[in-house]
Amino acid sequence: MGLLGGSVSLAIRQRMPGTVVVGYSHRAATRSRARSSALATEVADDLKAAVTQADLVILATPIFTFEHYFAEISATIPSGCIVTDVGSTKVLPHRWAEQSLGKQAHYVGSHPIAGSEQRGLEFARDDLLAQARCILTTTPQTHRASAATLRQFWSDLGCYVQTMTPEDHDRVFANISHLPHLIAAGLVNASDWQDVKYAGKGFLDSTRIASGPANIWTDVLLANGDNIADGIERVLAELTKLRKAVQDRDRKEIEALLEAARRKRASLVKYKIRKKELLS
Amino acid sequence: MGLLGGSVSLAIRQRMPGTVVVGYSHRAATRSRARSSALATEVADDLKAAVTQADLVILATPIFTFEHYFAEISATIPSGCIVTDVGSTKVLPHRWAEQSLGKQAHYVGSHPIAGSEQRGLEFARDDLLAQARCILTTTPQTHRASAATLRQFWSDLGCYVQTMTPEDHDRVFANISHLPHLIAAGLVNASDWQDVKYAGKGFLDSTRIASGPANIWTDVLLANGDNIADGIERVLAELTKLRKAVQDRDRKEIEALLEAARRKRASLVKYKIRKKELLS
Repeated sequence: MGLLGGSVSLAIRQRMPGTVVVGYSHRAATRSRARSSALATEVADDLKAAVTQADLVILATPIFTFEHYFAEISATIPSGCIVTDVGSTKVLPHRWAEQSLGKQAHYVGSHPIAGSEQRGLEFARDDLLAQARCILTTTPQTHRASAATLRQFWSDLGCYVQTMTPEDHDRVFANISHLPHLIAAGLVNASDWQDVKYAGKGFLDSTRIASGPANIWTDVLLANGDNIADGIERVLAELTKLRKAVQDRDRKEIEALLEAARRKRASLVKYKIRKKELLS
Repeated sequence: MGLLGGSVSLAIRQRMPGTVVVGYSHRAATRSRARSSALATEVADDLKAAVTQADLVILATPIFTFEHYFAEISATIPSGCIVTDVGSTKVLPHRWAEQSLGKQAHYVGSHPIAGSEQRGLEFARDDLLAQARCILTTTPQTHRASAATLRQFWSDLGCYVQTMTPEDHDRVFANISHLPHLIAAGLVNASDWQDVKYAGKGFLDSTRIASGPANIWTDVLLANGDNIADGIERVLAELTKLRKAVQDRDRKEIEALLEAARRKRASLVKYKIRKKELLS
């Protein structure tokens, strides 16, 4: 029941009146704050009690806790229960679900592309998922009716849903999310405090994602290490090329590299506006 | 009379009524658009005519044009005229002013930290400079009364003015502005189009500055090459450290690096809020 779990709960309460949302957190303080802010229909003090009548279970915890939770709930959830998660990597969750969840549950991966550098239920919002992209991950083993139900669920919460394999998902998100996060962290760590005091909007925007919670992101980087290491390799190659052009004062090469980036990003912005993910 | 020059002009017209602002661009089309949008009090068709009665001349062109313009105006400007520029590097402008401007003019460097990835007078706004930081650069040779006048000028336009040496300026801005720009460009160039189509707010924000005009930024990188090459070196070292930690699946090290970045950026955001450069 943090930023994302809390926002899913608020969105369900707003868009699916009559649906019972049972919240659970292993932290008593979080449970008590969730109760007093009426974040869910009810808040359970015990994980098993929380899931015993569930049609759908959504994990919104750090990725490396999933294996434990899958094992924990496997004996308690009703047969045919759909289980998903909102983690930022999908290969390991599929593997853990296969190993620990048992055959009576139907696992489908979810990755709603929503969030912010904030954390905690205080930042939960009923509109965090509206107009967000949500990736559904499936394999040939995925229970198809459950995947269809889950697609409808995210779509009813206002998401634009797309389906991918876990492998494609993890490669794509290494490149567009995990790698930028790590580069932002590298840039901040490379910067001197006396210098950054002068920072303007450019530096602040380009490093915003580095303010995300370190424990959540450590799990992401560990869970998607190979793709991320490949991505760092490619960025190191691009930066080395730029450094050489700068050292050689090679105007033509510097301008060609900057113009290629400018043009590619301009196409991206146009694409996002056409897809209505950005305002024009 | 692009984004920045046009915004300075609009701000003068709004905040200093009665002041005559003479605009000039070497492009006839820009001059005609500036006239029809009443960007300046008058628009001159000839550079010398534009500066002949000036108390203050502000260059808002790519850095490597300054040397030419200094030489061009040196014989025409009135004695005691203050000359400045709004370029993003300051060591070379000071050197060129010393060499080409002549003794009767008083050069002081300016760097208003305002702008966006947009360009052109269509994007000029009378409030672009309001609450912006503006760095004034001076050397022991700088005419002190002129520096004081220019400080008052930027301050009257709503800027928070600070003075630095050109050398300190170029080192600081290599690290907080030029380097992030180049890293954003490297990240975009390292990214596959099929992947970036899935990009969310994180990728878009962290690469926004890469949409800046390539010719302007090429000048900046050329004019500040040594500082920038040093900065790339430091970022390469940080990214290499992160890559090793990811490849080794070293949870402790990954989390330590991400947490150091998160904490440093959190201090920066707090500092910016305290200085009223950011809203809380």
